[in-house]
Amino acid sequence: MEKVNLEQKFGLFSEHWSPKIVGELNGQHVKLAKLKGEFIWHKHENEDELFFVVKGILKMEFRNKTVYVHENEFIIVPKGTEHRPVTDEEVLVMLFEPISTVNTGNENTELTKTILEKI
Amino acid sequence: MEKVNLEQKFGLFSEHWSPKIVGELNGQHVKLAKLKGEFIWHKHENEDELFFVVKGILKMEFRNKTVYVHENEFIIVPKGTEHRPVTDEEVLVMLFEPISTVNTGNENTELTKTILEKI
Repeated sequence: MEKVNLEQKFGLFSEHWSPKIVGELNGQHVKLAKLKGEFIWHKHENEDELFFVVKGILKMEFRNKTVYVHENEFIIVPKGTEHRPVTDEEVLVMLFEPISTVNTGNENTELTKTILEKI
Repeated sequence: MEKVNLEQKFGLFSEHWSPKIVGELNGQHVKLAKLKGEFIWHKHENEDELFFVVKGILKMEFRNKTVYVHENEFIIVPKGTEHRPVTDEEVLVMLFEPISTVNTGNENTELTKTILEKI
């Protein structure tokens, strides 16, 4: 029952596209990630995924549209939905998603993180 | 797949201690609430509960300690843990918890909200 300070946690890492676990509840993880550049197209077969933007502007690409998510906004990507996060500048996000969620979903690439650090 | 802007959603209601649903994923709800004053002591038998403070300072009382949660901080209250949210000034929070969660947990009082509005 300790509180978590986002700024303090974001200060503990610098790498992009490498989510860190900062909380767990009800079978879900709370993660923080730093994003920059273009990620890959992927989908999560069984998991909905929430992106809350803490800093910057996240461009979330879908096959049929693009949504720009600003600070203090979130977007929920439903399971089975192909998406690609893209950013111009560095973006800080908080993620809510099931513990089972793998960052690259159905794609297995060098960007895939199967073991996440708890910070 | 529409984004949700917290400031816009908070502008849609004014009452205290009445969470509004702004998102749903993986059997969980994302809720927004405005808190002011003292809530009641309660616990949730089966649900962990996350409080993310968007504005203000939330005083979260437990039986054995008190945690002050500031803006851009969150606290997870584990299931079965008695707690009481208290604020001096109005506090805006985002909640993340199972759909089954009732605001007053094991207590049934005039503060209990069994049907929540989606905004």
